[in-house]
Amino acid sequence: MPDSRRFAPETAAGLIATAHELADAARRVTLEYFRRPDLTADTKETARFDPVTEADRGAEREMREILARRRPDDAILGEEFGPTPGTSGLTWVLDPVDGTRGFLTGTPTWGVLIALSDENGPLYGLIDQPHIGERFEGGLGLARVTGPRGEAALACRPGRALSDAFLFSTFPEIGTPGDARAFARVAERVKLVRYGLDCYAYALLAAGQIDLVIEAGLQAYDIQAPMAVIRAAGGIVTDWQGGDCAQGGRAIAAANAEVHAAALDLLAGS
Amino acid sequence: MPDSRRFAPETAAGLIATAHELADAARRVTLEYFRRPDLTADTKETARFDPVTEADRGAEREMREILARRRPDDAILGEEFGPTPGTSGLTWVLDPVDGTRGFLTGTPTWGVLIALSDENGPLYGLIDQPHIGERFEGGLGLARVTGPRGEAALACRPGRALSDAFLFSTFPEIGTPGDARAFARVAERVKLVRYGLDCYAYALLAAGQIDLVIEAGLQAYDIQAPMAVIRAAGGIVTDWQGGDCAQGGRAIAAANAEVHAAALDLLAGS
Repeated sequence: MPDSRRFAPETAAGLIATAHELADAARRVTLEYFRRPDLTADTKETARFDPVTEADRGAEREMREILARRRPDDAILGEEFGPTPGTSGLTWVLDPVDGTRGFLTGTPTWGVLIALSDENGPLYGLIDQPHIGERFEGGLGLARVTGPRGEAALACRPGRALSDAFLFSTFPEIGTPGDARAFARVAERVKLVRYGLDCYAYALLAAGQIDLVIEAGLQAYDIQAPMAVIRAAGGIVTDWQGGDCAQGGRAIAAANAEVHAAALDLLAGS
Repeated sequence: MPDSRRFAPETAAGLIATAHELADAARRVTLEYFRRPDLTADTKETARFDPVTEADRGAEREMREILARRRPDDAILGEEFGPTPGTSGLTWVLDPVDGTRGFLTGTPTWGVLIALSDENGPLYGLIDQPHIGERFEGGLGLARVTGPRGEAALACRPGRALSDAFLFSTFPEIGTPGDARAFARVAERVKLVRYGLDCYAYALLAAGQIDLVIEAGLQAYDIQAPMAVIRAAGGIVTDWQGGDCAQGGRAIAAANAEVHAAALDLLAGS
């Protein structure tokens, strides 16, 4: 992981400790609201159901207070409160509740996403699942999951035929009609397709459980933490043409180069 | 809950204790295999991907050993090893891993299903999620969830407009083409549709988080435990015509009579 050379070990440890302090705060705030019967949901857009909860706003507020104290020179890009400029060249990219639909329905597959990025993209990422108590992280020398069943290394699965691959996506009606046709070309060729996991699908890919995650319509804060975690576990994350997807849009995460190449070919229509 | 009148309290407590001993054994066996990189999957059918794991077989074997010791006169209907006759009029209905696709992909929304039934249907049901450590149960005087965040009563949501309802189903390509069209008539009218949870969707309905679960192609062991849990929480479980679904087939679980009636109308094509 070349990223880890950027920082002296004590600096990396401090950055990781900051990320965990952010995740701990977000876990505490979000769990105050998760499965609360009186939880209310606002709606950002009318065309697509995209609720914003008090949990989302409360957690980002607390994370921003921690960063103001611990890392005042870093920039922040948050889902709820937008960009805050910095001077260090580092940006904390925060999605306090990735998967608000999962959150609203009591499903424990939403997560808190925290990335630390520079101008070249994410250096470190953390995917936290507060209800289960699982934390997946990668970059700055780490690739691990910690949780109720202990700690384990994250490592993506080795290459296998596309016909043996497991593919996840959040919605069956992914992206534009053209996006959906491209997705269907891959979905028809794999062994198993599952929907509905939001960021937890990326965590499963980093944990060696599945082979592909294909999404469209992403924001930077949806993809930067998963990018860092998956790359640290040996996987590949690009846009549907094989280019950079750190700014969002259409993304494909793959456990290895073989399955990545095979899926890219099908997405391109060949 | 009229079911609880059938048994003296000490008898009900013994039956519930047996169910928990079964669930504990199944939890232990299934977790030995969950997220194991070398897990192999057999395939029962070639047309539909329906893997059977060692976890499935091992867990049912252990549950059958417990029943042979504790409840030798009861019948057993298990997913893996079929029916075993009894003389008591009671049947233990076992699905050691409901959601083998979820299990195989590392997703923590599969579960262990245990029901105790007589000739009129399920009296008691238990839905266990081993990885999270959550156990939902209902019947014989109980309606509760226990887990890492403590114990809580299960209670379905009160009535609301179908346009505000949350609907879950395991697959977007549910049942036959006619089933899929009927499902789509409901899906188009609700606020939110999610896929991919298997039995955990029923647990969320009993926990008051969602309004509807609609499925097709079920077996008796898929639905009897959820039926008991949801009914104990105040909800309704029927087939798509409003009749009994204890033997499987097409099922609709609803949080209340209003949303049940509205969804049945749409399933019928009106």
